[in-house]
Amino acid sequence: MQAVDFYFDFISPYAYLAWTQLPALCARHGVQLRYKPILFAGLLNHWGQRGPAEIAPKREFLWKDTHRMASRLKVPFSLPKTHPFNPLLALRLALPEVSMAQQEQVIDAIWSAGWVQGAELSSIDALHQALTASHLDADVLLDRANQPEAKATLRAATEEAVRAGVFGVPTYHVAQELFWGCDRLDDLANFLAGKDPIDADKIRAILTNYSASADRVKSK
Amino acid sequence: MQAVDFYFDFISPYAYLAWTQLPALCARHGVQLRYKPILFAGLLNHWGQRGPAEIAPKREFLWKDTHRMASRLKVPFSLPKTHPFNPLLALRLALPEVSMAQQEQVIDAIWSAGWVQGAELSSIDALHQALTASHLDADVLLDRANQPEAKATLRAATEEAVRAGVFGVPTYHVAQELFWGCDRLDDLANFLAGKDPIDADKIRAILTNYSASADRVKSK
Repeated sequence: MQAVDFYFDFISPYAYLAWTQLPALCARHGVQLRYKPILFAGLLNHWGQRGPAEIAPKREFLWKDTHRMASRLKVPFSLPKTHPFNPLLALRLALPEVSMAQQEQVIDAIWSAGWVQGAELSSIDALHQALTASHLDADVLLDRANQPEAKATLRAATEEAVRAGVFGVPTYHVAQELFWGCDRLDDLANFLAGKDPIDADKIRAILTNYSASADRVKSK
Repeated sequence: MQAVDFYFDFISPYAYLAWTQLPALCARHGVQLRYKPILFAGLLNHWGQRGPAEIAPKREFLWKDTHRMASRLKVPFSLPKTHPFNPLLALRLALPEVSMAQQEQVIDAIWSAGWVQGAELSSIDALHQALTASHLDADVLLDRANQPEAKATLRAATEEAVRAGVFGVPTYHVAQELFWGCDRLDDLANFLAGKDPIDADKIRAILTNYSASADRVKSK
């Protein structure tokens, strides 16, 4: 069975919006959805990039843009109590090594708490409450998420994402192709349906013969 | 008459794709389209951001993504001979102070030469040829574009864009609202039709009371 790897961080409103669509999209195309929690800040650090919330006018645009997108998708959308927030504990809870057979329920509980109910996703109390409300054993899950092994696993997962070429969230990875952005779900769906309009191999071949100079032009 | 300011750099394939749609979109909504050539590299330098072509997997995604988008829009799409290229001369030609009453023809000629015919847009010869083919007086235009005044004007235009909060291209600016991205033309159209689904003022107000901490979380 083909699988889509969904790279996300609870900090990203675009990843939240993608999550509202992705399970149904994958089910429609008969592909498995694999959840890949990673630390977005780790991607930014690796690629030497600033986060969208770190550029004031981009931050303002981002909030308007995500509200517009939520409206178009007809899904609930609330801002978490603070943003950006420290997503580390939430991400560790979402690791398959921590949430195990309950991974999907844990992830659903955290997304809903933060982006539907507006909870403080860096707070252990808020996470405890969200897990409990979803009939999950919060004490056991939080205990596992706080082990050093979980911290190492999240670091390794983020490094693995970097090696796979992931540079942002949400990213969907399927059969060597990366699709980036909540607004690229249609492209993913086309690809899964065998209707990708481009020849990705041909484009890759063109690029290898193409100027790869990354020198910036300076105004003079 | 309401006006849309279109901030662009000939280096951006997304700005090219937006240009293929924007004149008709503005005409449909009875608004003026004002062309604002700016140096994308100047935006990146100001906001401390890396360009998409400077991150290897993002560069590959970008080319596939723009090919997919061109296919969806049913517009021709060729890669300029080199990329990134030095767009300064092309941008100066596009300034209203240089191309004057012929600004739209000059801009159309340059976009078509680079992104339809695959010309080398940093080359004075290629630009001369493109202008001439469009029945423009290439010698006069290039002479004006090479004056120190034109260089200063492009620098000032880029600085003005930064002050307006422009952080990327293409950006459409209308009535205090910035829309960023070739994939946000529908949002611009909704806004022009009075159908923006969000209350932008309300979101701005929320943001001022919201944590603006830009500290990154470090994996630990």
